[in-house]
Amino acid sequence: MQFHHHGYVSGDPRVKPAAGVGINRPQELPDEMDVLIVGSGPAGMLAAAQLAQFPDINTRIIERRPGRLEIGQADGIQARSVETFQAFGFAEQITAEAYWITEMNFWRPDTEDPKKIVRGGRAKDDETGISEFKHLIVNQARVLDYFADVAAKSPSRLVPDFGWDFQTLEVTDEGEYPVKVTLVRSAGPDEGAERIVRAKYVIGSDGARSKVRQSIGCSMRGDQANHAWGVMDVLAKTDFPDIRTKCAIQSHDGGSILLIPREGGHLFRMYVDLGVVPEDDHGNVRKTSIDEIIARANAIMSPYTVDVRSVAWHSVYEVGHRLTDRFDDVLPEELGTRTPRVFITGDACHTHSAKAGQGMNVSMQDGFNIAWKLGHVLEGRSPESLLSTYSAERQVVAKNLIDFDKTWSTMMAKKPEEFEDPSELEDFYVRTAEFPAGFMTEYTPSLIVGEAKHQSLATGYPVGKRFKSARATRVCDTNPLHLGHQAEADGRWRIYVFADAAAPGADSPTAELAQWLSTSPDSPLAAQPQGGDDDAWFDVKVVYQQPHEDIDINAVPAVFKPEVGPFKLTDLQKVYGTVPGDDIFDVRGLSRDGVIVVVRPDQYVANVLPLTAKDELAAFFGPLLHARQPQH
Amino acid sequence: MQFHHHGYVSGDPRVKPAAGVGINRPQELPDEMDVLIVGSGPAGMLAAAQLAQFPDINTRIIERRPGRLEIGQADGIQARSVETFQAFGFAEQITAEAYWITEMNFWRPDTEDPKKIVRGGRAKDDETGISEFKHLIVNQARVLDYFADVAAKSPSRLVPDFGWDFQTLEVTDEGEYPVKVTLVRSAGPDEGAERIVRAKYVIGSDGARSKVRQSIGCSMRGDQANHAWGVMDVLAKTDFPDIRTKCAIQSHDGGSILLIPREGGHLFRMYVDLGVVPEDDHGNVRKTSIDEIIARANAIMSPYTVDVRSVAWHSVYEVGHRLTDRFDDVLPEELGTRTPRVFITGDACHTHSAKAGQGMNVSMQDGFNIAWKLGHVLEGRSPESLLSTYSAERQVVAKNLIDFDKTWSTMMAKKPEEFEDPSELEDFYVRTAEFPAGFMTEYTPSLIVGEAKHQSLATGYPVGKRFKSARATRVCDTNPLHLGHQAEADGRWRIYVFADAAAPGADSPTAELAQWLSTSPDSPLAAQPQGGDDDAWFDVKVVYQQPHEDIDINAVPAVFKPEVGPFKLTDLQKVYGTVPGDDIFDVRGLSRDGVIVVVRPDQYVANVLPLTAKDELAAFFGPLLHARQPQH
Ligand SMILES: Cc1cc2nc3c(=O)[nH]c(=O)nc-3n(C[C@H](O)[C@H](O)[C@H](O)COP(=O)(O)OP(=O)(O)OC[C@H]3O[C@@H](n4cnc5c(N)ncnc54)[C@H](O)[C@@H]3O)c2cc1C
Ligand SMILES: Cc1cc2nc3c(=O)[nH]c(=O)nc-3n(C[C@H](O)[C@H](O)[C@H](O)COP(=O)(O)OP(=O)(O)OC[C@H]3O[C@@H](n4cnc5c(N)ncnc54)[C@H](O)[C@@H]3O)c2cc1C
Repeated sequence: MQFHHHGYVSGDPRVKPAAGVGINRPQELPDEMDVLIVGSGPAGMLAAAQLAQFPDINTRIIERRPGRLEIGQADGIQARSVETFQAFGFAEQITAEAYWITEMNFWRPDTEDPKKIVRGGRAKDDETGISEFKHLIVNQARVLDYFADVAAKSPSRLVPDFGWDFQTLEVTDEGEYPVKVTLVRSAGPDEGAERIVRAKYVIGSDGARSKVRQSIGCSMRGDQANHAWGVMDVLAKTDFPDIRTKCAIQSHDGGSILLIPREGGHLFRMYVDLGVVPEDDHGNVRKTSIDEIIARANAIMSPYTVDVRSVAWHSVYEVGHRLTDRFDDVLPEELGTRTPRVFITGDACHTHSAKAGQGMNVSMQDGFNIAWKLGHVLEGRSPESLLSTYSAERQVVAKNLIDFDKTWSTMMAKKPEEFEDPSELEDFYVRTAEFPAGFMTEYTPSLIVGEAKHQSLATGYPVGKRFKSARATRVCDTNPLHLGHQAEADGRWRIYVFADAAAPGADSPTAELAQWLSTSPDSPLAAQPQGGDDDAWFDVKVVYQQPHEDIDINAVPAVFKPEVGPFKLTDLQKVYGTVPGDDIFDVRGLSRDGVIVVVRPDQYVANVLPLTAKDELAAFFGPLLHARQPQH
Repeated sequence: MQFHHHGYVSGDPRVKPAAGVGINRPQELPDEMDVLIVGSGPAGMLAAAQLAQFPDINTRIIERRPGRLEIGQADGIQARSVETFQAFGFAEQITAEAYWITEMNFWRPDTEDPKKIVRGGRAKDDETGISEFKHLIVNQARVLDYFADVAAKSPSRLVPDFGWDFQTLEVTDEGEYPVKVTLVRSAGPDEGAERIVRAKYVIGSDGARSKVRQSIGCSMRGDQANHAWGVMDVLAKTDFPDIRTKCAIQSHDGGSILLIPREGGHLFRMYVDLGVVPEDDHGNVRKTSIDEIIARANAIMSPYTVDVRSVAWHSVYEVGHRLTDRFDDVLPEELGTRTPRVFITGDACHTHSAKAGQGMNVSMQDGFNIAWKLGHVLEGRSPESLLSTYSAERQVVAKNLIDFDKTWSTMMAKKPEEFEDPSELEDFYVRTAEFPAGFMTEYTPSLIVGEAKHQSLATGYPVGKRFKSARATRVCDTNPLHLGHQAEADGRWRIYVFADAAAPGADSPTAELAQWLSTSPDSPLAAQPQGGDDDAWFDVKVVYQQPHEDIDINAVPAVFKPEVGPFKLTDLQKVYGTVPGDDIFDVRGLSRDGVIVVVRPDQYVANVLPLTAKDELAAFFGPLLHARQPQH
């Protein structure tokens, strides 16, 4: 956290000084806005929290409900999401209140007495150290609370507009705010009143039955039938010994339970499989009562019993594997002729089972992906073509997710005797762990992802995958820190310069690059607005190969020590050395000749380049920066 | 955190359900209260946050200021304080916004050119792993904010009463509320109005010029002269390379600076030594201007310059080494004839230099020490004699602190040429690190500290010192956790049963002890109130020698799995196994025959006993528990 540099901040430094639209932000939904987000679920709230960091962009988020979500829905938080929370500043807090998954246990029928279940195996949740973050369970409502808190404390002071029901929209050719949106008041004294508002862009984060999706003519394709689970969040007395461990429980007659212990030490969730729902079920499955769900759970758990004492929430969660063909309003035949105005995210684009705990997580990454892009386009940093990468990137991710989830849920639904090997399920779980942890996303080359021609210079930073943190020592205060954790979700591009072997001060490719970065008109930094902080758009960090004692900070080139704030203070926090015994060059396979790693605002590696590749760096950013482009 | 067990909690689980005085707590200061705390500094706020956990005790805290502290005062947070914050639930949050001290650098005159300073040495802040917590720098105001937050979210919903100036008090013999207190309104429309309130007990946390101290006839004794520093919190441009590292800087003519980088990445504090102030100075030193302080700093820092751009706060901090002879209102001649009604804490009892960064820290531990004792006495758990241990315990700590600080500040004041060895200062700093980190406190045998007859059974838990955390695996959810971090500042005694080698279920000393604890009328647990949680007063945990996989939780004795809450749910979170490769029995030198470690509500080890020492355990708690004592 960087603060006090505009003058002393007496209270909570997480409350950023109000700026732009955050100064005197109108409480009432205005008639016109830059971005309208529809729906305050995980996708919408992440997008809101990210856009709120751009104080010159007027973003509003509407929600049909009269107030915050109180209970229920998803609860599995993969490590990639916690990593994301870290960038938004609340990973520690939410981790402290969450349940931590360390192991998953597999129960199956006793071969001697199949009517009884026995513990078949234990699997470590993250055996291979995929992430330094934990795998959490915490209610979706709390995730939304934390994002709401970030948005409210942001420079734009963004808070959701509750009680508005989106009806439809139309993309017109008219004026500055071409998207015409029809809303209806869904709460308050004027409930039922219709209203038209206009926006430059609309993000539809309105869930599985999305009306935004309908408005832009997308439809969901996939299985015709849904899979149903009885879901219950309960407090109970039980003699089941693993009640506080995540378990997949399969009984002899095929009935199965996914047990998810919950935050707070007592509550747990059970997903009781209700099977595939035929199309002609006419909603009958949704009538399954809580008593039936409890009875079925007890049958599966035999010889153990679950004496439910309090039901916090229950539902029949019914969902199919479905996906839209596009994530924005540009029809296939229009591709290349115009850029999108409306985007859909999260459940509005993809639905799948709850078994792999993905829904909330993937939805948040959709929101992360579109929000910074809209920020850059609306601020005039980047051309509108940037927006076309959203659908292109996220559609593939959703497709992979659905394929993975199909395999996983088919396996979970199998009867024990159908497995060739009793530990097949467990083995699959361990083997594919990187996927549900959220780290398999790998964007392909595009406007914002390079060609990976120089991947061998940084084998631990695959181009297109998320930048995995490792430790380095911050020179100025001698703190060994996770380098990745120093990147806030502030919408900035990051350029990590991993230096060659020379120390600062010596003539070297690093020094030359630094000189070019700060002085060349071709440098991406030259596109930054005049008069602002030296690092307004680009956070440039350097990591030397030496331990911190051997780095003379006064000899470090100026580009790594930007001047910031009204007092033109020098920010010394961008200069790093290696941690003895945990050298980031070894840990991430970085060339000792040095390497540049470019990272996107949403934490994905955009490019890996040699220190000398100034032209390539300029060429990569050229099309992305308005000021760098030929003026038209 | 344990929550949801009284039913689902939809919002922030840190907001505890209101109870007792927290239900409809009057906003206005009442005429009568159980405890009146005077002064909302670190000592008072910790005491308030602790007493707020006792919902049947009406605690109020008054403060002369009209609102929260905004700026200035102390900023050094030793690891013992962070450990304490952990118990109050905000260690992660405050750590995230603080500066972290990793190294301290020592600058001295260049032997070749003494007018220039050079870096003489670097010392790691906690080389030997005294604590798993960091050494932080963060403004006192934020520490107070966090305690205020804990108190406000506690069952009692305690918030400070601002704008009340304590005048005097009198301990009468009258009625239930014998302490008669005179206050004056110091803010608001009725400023200047006098008011009498009555309390059962008063805690004077009203700082160095304490009027509570005066009222009970204590006086401060010590040096006649004060030592003065010009203190400034500033933003500056500088070429001093260690500006973001804690430094002791000594110049050739004896002028010295203690440099403390501050939170947020830019602000720093300098203590510029103004020397010993003679008694006949008549406040002249306090007239030292900020310009003079800056000029003096620049002279000392030569050849480096400090171009101050913004002054957040500055002060001349003038303080002597002083100590009161007693910390409560019981005169020496009354000792043994009556128990105290008025206590003083923090700067009201002891003042000393800022050099070792102790003031705020030791003051908080004073508050921690008295608060739980008052809680237990007022709730009727324990006899009033418990209150006499406060002065006895804390007076010694303060005395040691002052002795340490005298040595340290004398060394800091020495001219470089007076040192035999140029690294003398640095060596002293490293050698004595446990003291300033806050872990040298060692209470001697008393009503609440045992005789250490069985210390050899647990060499890593010295009786009288604070319970140092180590890792163990919680069986029910397979989480490897810091055992010590599972202890909240909830006012409960803790009994850790480190089991013998037998597994649960087998006949063993552990099983026998468990049986005795839950069924014997001599067990301390038998004193607990009927109808409450099984662990209302005593948090009993067991750590088996086996790794978690080998522990059958169903075979663990009932006393380690208490029933809690209205639904009588089983709390499984008190049963631990060892972490392979990090076995707590080895790490803390615990006997393989098992051992009982009794820990006080303020985290100090009270007793170490063999598993078979039921009589000794009963005898230890006997005098401490009203219900266990012969009724009079
Ligand atoms: C009832 C329910 C139960 C679920 N249970 C589970 C589960 O047990 N496990 C699991 O993994 N996942 C579950 N999910 C799915 C999981 O919650 C989603 O994958 C995740 O929330 C997707 O995030 P999202 O932001 O895309 O959409 P959502 O979280 O669905 O958010 C959409 C938001 O848009 C609002 N909205 C909808 N239409 C409009 C409109 N016209 N105008 C204004 N606002 C509108 C909604 O009120 C909602 O707040 C459940 C979802 C629901 C709805
Ligand atoms: C101006 C100042 C500067 C300091 N600078 C430093 C520093 O640079 N470095 C350092 O290590 N330590 C510094 N200290 C000391 C450090 O702040 C204390 O050691 C620490 O705060 C002690 O905590 P406490 O709770 O005992 O007392 P305090 O923090 O002093 O709190 C006492 C509280 O009681 C209130 N109070 C006083 N009298 C009354 C009354 N009659 N009625 C009602 N309320 C009353 C005060 O307003 C205050 O809020 C400074 C203290 C002060 C006052």
